[in-house]
Amino acid sequence: MTGPHTLILLRHGQSEWNELNLFTGWVDVRLTEQGKAEARRGGELLAEAGLHPDVLYTSVLSRAIQTANIALDAADRLWIPVKRSWRLNERHYGALQGKDKAQTLAEFGQEQFMLWRRSFDVPPPLLDDDSEFSQVGDPRYAGIDGEVPRTESLKLVIDRLLPYWHSDIVPDLNAGKTVLVTAHGNSLRGLVKHLEGISDDDIAELNIPTGIPLVYHLDENLVPTGPGEYLDPAAAAAGAAAVAAQGKN
Amino acid sequence: MTGPHTLILLRHGQSEWNELNLFTGWVDVRLTEQGKAEARRGGELLAEAGLHPDVLYTSVLSRAIQTANIALDAADRLWIPVKRSWRLNERHYGALQGKDKAQTLAEFGQEQFMLWRRSFDVPPPLLDDDSEFSQVGDPRYAGIDGEVPRTESLKLVIDRLLPYWHSDIVPDLNAGKTVLVTAHGNSLRGLVKHLEGISDDDIAELNIPTGIPLVYHLDENLVPTGPGEYLDPAAAAAGAAAVAAQGKN
Repeated sequence: MTGPHTLILLRHGQSEWNELNLFTGWVDVRLTEQGKAEARRGGELLAEAGLHPDVLYTSVLSRAIQTANIALDAADRLWIPVKRSWRLNERHYGALQGKDKAQTLAEFGQEQFMLWRRSFDVPPPLLDDDSEFSQVGDPRYAGIDGEVPRTESLKLVIDRLLPYWHSDIVPDLNAGKTVLVTAHGNSLRGLVKHLEGISDDDIAELNIPTGIPLVYHLDENLVPTGPGEYLDPAAAAAGAAAVAAQGKN
Repeated sequence: MTGPHTLILLRHGQSEWNELNLFTGWVDVRLTEQGKAEARRGGELLAEAGLHPDVLYTSVLSRAIQTANIALDAADRLWIPVKRSWRLNERHYGALQGKDKAQTLAEFGQEQFMLWRRSFDVPPPLLDDDSEFSQVGDPRYAGIDGEVPRTESLKLVIDRLLPYWHSDIVPDLNAGKTVLVTAHGNSLRGLVKHLEGISDDDIAELNIPTGIPLVYHLDENLVPTGPGEYLDPAAAAAGAAAVAAQGKN
């Protein structure tokens, strides 16, 4: 089904820390070669589907920006306007940032691990300001009103994401633009939760694979006219299962 | 010498058509592998010099955007805000777009060739709208007031460049931002002509090499406090000589 508005969500390709199975959050790691290949494939899928983004939104994290740059190059849309915001960043993983997922699972047990990973409103412990993985003092966050986050739950991600959705992305959609948002597992989960009206409980089961465009057609009230559609459904299902399995190896 | 404002100009790295020695203008060719290496080196030079761009300006041509993306990745500044404008595009080369430089020189003679390449206000013949090298109908130019250019002299480039300089770049400089402009041989020649007050005649002798950051410190009136400084002066001199020699082989 189609609607008057088209929104495309793209999770960044595999990062160096996805590959190492570390909690990343706001730590600014780069794409692996596999992640770059995923980004290229994402751009090719857009072109093959005849989808032409008019404007790009990214977080301020390099892995999302690299993904967007590579995908737009592959889709021959490098020239579209770009807007970046920390409000599209991955969830801040607090004191877990830099920690191995499997090790964290072994250390804290399945219940606590899943609470941190998939509970709606339980943030991990605060990250120390003097941790090497802290973002306090990073110039890219100089413009944040208030304090740079030290940890976030999915609920806190949505709380800082939605004001930007309404102030910036919605006006572009209402202007008839096809919007591409290149961001992260949890900021995109938050956005999908909002769009599809998913409950606080059910969102735990939603996993978004890397590098595969997820397309929403929205009606005049910006309500999806149907479920989001991955441009490569088979690869998306496999990718989502792989995300769900993280930490279990 | 330093001043309160820092402006960094960066000409894109070698493009596919630089390599083939074709007039390019607004034709949207990509970087060669050498061009990508130049862009990376440009970013490394910025980082080594301790220069931290706060905002990026690019044309809407892929070779300038690729250069900026690669350079900012190398300089670890992918996250800075980006603004793009066709007003920073290369000079439109009219009917010469797609033609071989050496062949054009042989066909029209040295005098006519240099008039097109280096005269201040003589544009090449108009490009036909139905040429494969025309930009009429390209969606990236849908927002241009009036008509998409069919040819331009350097004077016409400056005429469409300076309004953008004043409306967008100058306010960012006045706000204390370090500005990076990643653009093209002729749009950057036009900007340097304006900054340094170079005469219409003398600008013919100015050649800007690819991929080497050119740094200006500007006083409170945005007048350079000294000549622009290339971050790799030896490579810049060799590069400028190579540009000057184009068409002579």
